[in-house]
Amino acid sequence: MQIAILIFEKLTVLDAIGPYEVLRSVPGWEVQFVGPEAGPIRADSGSLGLVADYSIDEVTEPDMVLVPGGEGTRPLIEDARVLVWLRNVAQQARWTTSVCTGSLVLGAAGLLEGKRATCHWLYLERLREFGAEPTSERVVEDGKVMTAAGVSAGIDMALHLVNRELGEEAAQAIQLAIEYDPEPPFDSGSPAKAPDQIVEAVTQVAAASDEWLGARTGSGT
Amino acid sequence: MQIAILIFEKLTVLDAIGPYEVLRSVPGWEVQFVGPEAGPIRADSGSLGLVADYSIDEVTEPDMVLVPGGEGTRPLIEDARVLVWLRNVAQQARWTTSVCTGSLVLGAAGLLEGKRATCHWLYLERLREFGAEPTSERVVEDGKVMTAAGVSAGIDMALHLVNRELGEEAAQAIQLAIEYDPEPPFDSGSPAKAPDQIVEAVTQVAAASDEWLGARTGSGT
Repeated sequence: MQIAILIFEKLTVLDAIGPYEVLRSVPGWEVQFVGPEAGPIRADSGSLGLVADYSIDEVTEPDMVLVPGGEGTRPLIEDARVLVWLRNVAQQARWTTSVCTGSLVLGAAGLLEGKRATCHWLYLERLREFGAEPTSERVVEDGKVMTAAGVSAGIDMALHLVNRELGEEAAQAIQLAIEYDPEPPFDSGSPAKAPDQIVEAVTQVAAASDEWLGARTGSGT
Repeated sequence: MQIAILIFEKLTVLDAIGPYEVLRSVPGWEVQFVGPEAGPIRADSGSLGLVADYSIDEVTEPDMVLVPGGEGTRPLIEDARVLVWLRNVAQQARWTTSVCTGSLVLGAAGLLEGKRATCHWLYLERLREFGAEPTSERVVEDGKVMTAAGVSAGIDMALHLVNRELGEEAAQAIQLAIEYDPEPPFDSGSPAKAPDQIVEAVTQVAAASDEWLGARTGSGT
């Protein structure tokens, strides 16, 4: 299994690294970090540099492609070269996958038409613009497309992918190897569970810095 | 709060990136990736390059230091320059922290003497060599030292750190922003929960490729 993880300027790094750590643990599976161009990439925080070993021109037939999210998805959904690449690799890939707002990039590439899909909760409804059916679940599988909710959900998605490909024992072994026995100190990881004032505060902070959300709030939709 | 995350050749990347994604989300907190030398770093899988923006000589007074784990900790626990740096920064830091086998590096630096600490479950008992008391919990706080269990446990630790510094609402807001509402498909994330044959298989695979575990098995201790 050859896995291409797309990385790009201003990605949210955990979206990519959560699944990477699971998928790279499978013997024989190879992960490649692929950028629009090969070379250094800066994370959305500005404080971390990653390296894309390959450009999208060099990786044309991965068995799995994964698109993370982050602020950097905004220019990406208008980047014809990347969208054409995604459409092409999705045609022959066993799995086309995303984490967080990476699903909006899959949508912009036309890969979610008529499909159930998920996204970071703040952006879930935007999936409709691409003909997808927003589905508020942590991991959504529809055909050979698998999407994960926000940021940390990529770890769960990757374990699902290992389970689907290799079965329960392989997925359990990797879960144990990365000691994924989560104990968050609070139960506020989804808008359905967090206190109302926390949901409101996070929404307001995001809208203030993000034209996508600001525009949505402004237009009342 | 200035946070130094130590990165080094053959680190396990999720150990660093889990906490990074939480800590960098706090307004006003600044994360710096610091290497023994500034420049490119290769992950333990070989398939990912990160960039250390700073060398340890350039970052001498962080408020928090975090040491991830991975195969690359083996040479690190014998690297006098890094261990002296850790001892120095720990003296004035508010928090000295680790994820996974990063705690063995804290131990080698003499920072865990008489302290309760945790580590990846496969390596937990090795903490005794450094005068620490191995503690099989996901996050262990003892004085101003906080250690996390294997790989994915760094996310939980970082939320604890935010809670300790800024309180519950700040930690809940970040948990919601990264949608950390974990749903692992199985309940096999710790040796106490995974099926026996999975624990045995993971232990054997690790021992076969790791002289630390192989040696321990060989000597019967």
